[in-house]
Amino acid sequence: MKPNDWRIVLVRPRNPLNIGAAARALANFGFQDLVVVAPYDPVWQEARSAVGASAVVKRARSVRTLLEAVGDCTLVVGTTTGSRRNLDRAPVPLRELCRQQPAQSRQRRAALLFGSEKTGLSNSDFSYCHLLARIPTSANCPSMNLGQAVAVCCYELARTADFPHAERAAPAGAPSPADLQSVEHVLDRAATVLEQAGYFTPKGRNAQILKLRRLILGFGLSSHDVRVLGGVLAQIEWKLKKK
Amino acid sequence: MKPNDWRIVLVRPRNPLNIGAAARALANFGFQDLVVVAPYDPVWQEARSAVGASAVVKRARSVRTLLEAVGDCTLVVGTTTGSRRNLDRAPVPLRELCRQQPAQSRQRRAALLFGSEKTGLSNSDFSYCHLLARIPTSANCPSMNLGQAVAVCCYELARTADFPHAERAAPAGAPSPADLQSVEHVLDRAATVLEQAGYFTPKGRNAQILKLRRLILGFGLSSHDVRVLGGVLAQIEWKLKKK
Repeated sequence: MKPNDWRIVLVRPRNPLNIGAAARALANFGFQDLVVVAPYDPVWQEARSAVGASAVVKRARSVRTLLEAVGDCTLVVGTTTGSRRNLDRAPVPLRELCRQQPAQSRQRRAALLFGSEKTGLSNSDFSYCHLLARIPTSANCPSMNLGQAVAVCCYELARTADFPHAERAAPAGAPSPADLQSVEHVLDRAATVLEQAGYFTPKGRNAQILKLRRLILGFGLSSHDVRVLGGVLAQIEWKLKKK
Repeated sequence: MKPNDWRIVLVRPRNPLNIGAAARALANFGFQDLVVVAPYDPVWQEARSAVGASAVVKRARSVRTLLEAVGDCTLVVGTTTGSRRNLDRAPVPLRELCRQQPAQSRQRRAALLFGSEKTGLSNSDFSYCHLLARIPTSANCPSMNLGQAVAVCCYELARTADFPHAERAAPAGAPSPADLQSVEHVLDRAATVLEQAGYFTPKGRNAQILKLRRLILGFGLSSHDVRVLGGVLAQIEWKLKKK
């Protein structure tokens, strides 16, 4: 994958200097596509109007939800440092990321997510991720500055070309991968069905949805799979309603 | 080499935020030894007294000259980005640095130098370097933020352990390498001799000294070599004076 295949997504950034620094790091390593999710509005305005704001910042989109930011992506990767506990799966070291990308990542759009300066990515954010990547910081000082974390990741992703296997083509005739928005439609359908089936508990619903999203993402659905599953779920929904 | 074998040196930094950011990057990747050369004094004071200034900044030394910062080092590496022209030698890509370290680097102290935000390292700074390392930035936006450049380099150096050959021991019985201060003594002696021999031109002297330093560094002298060369030069000096 090339830098142009990647979108860098800052989720709830809180410091305009960090947004500017992140944008500069993108430009330094040949990336162009920056999206900011739910920034604090004055912060976003300040970042965009800063003297010397780069073309990357000026072109950047601001959206309200993570799904809007990555709905068209077929690979979503969340970043974390060594300090984070209670992750729902083991993160891969950043350098290994290039080797572990599932086949679909080589065909379409990928996104790399960075959390806010204080809290990082939330469990809800992680539920949208196919993979987690760990920036291998020291246990004594694990938390990185946002702009520096983006710089390190862009540097490493831009070096992907060093790994020949990262450039191998998807097998001929391989089905086209589902983007995140299509997977989310399947999840919505499944949630409706499970709602009717009495699967959710009032207090547990949110956590149950995150787990379902994680489960369905793990299927590695193609766009064909998504249509089939959608039909199956619609049928179940119809049957349940009829009762 | 381990992070503890490296000293990170900021030459003439001009922004206290960058000094703080650089120090944080050191701590993130397990480095501890930060030296600042000829900082603008108010900047240095502000960096040290900043709220949340890290232990790395508080322990950092400030010195007046580059030689004071790296005199005890046996490997000095200058950093540059792709934009720099008229370098006196080809820089190696940052990732290759770990593979190209001369034997002496595996035994003693190494330093990685970063220039000021505006001008980078000078030709005089480069003349003290055994190697130049290039951070592979894009031609469209080559110049990095100082704190981000330090983060990328610390990340990469800390990954050296991924390359088994970087850890191979120096051959048994290999002579101990000369540190930069000893090499500088040889240069001083040589300069005195050449002065007497009428080698220098009034306007060219500075540039000639830089070239000589570069030449002598390239010899890869051991501490034994330094003593022998010192004796040779002293003898020539004596003879020239006698005449």
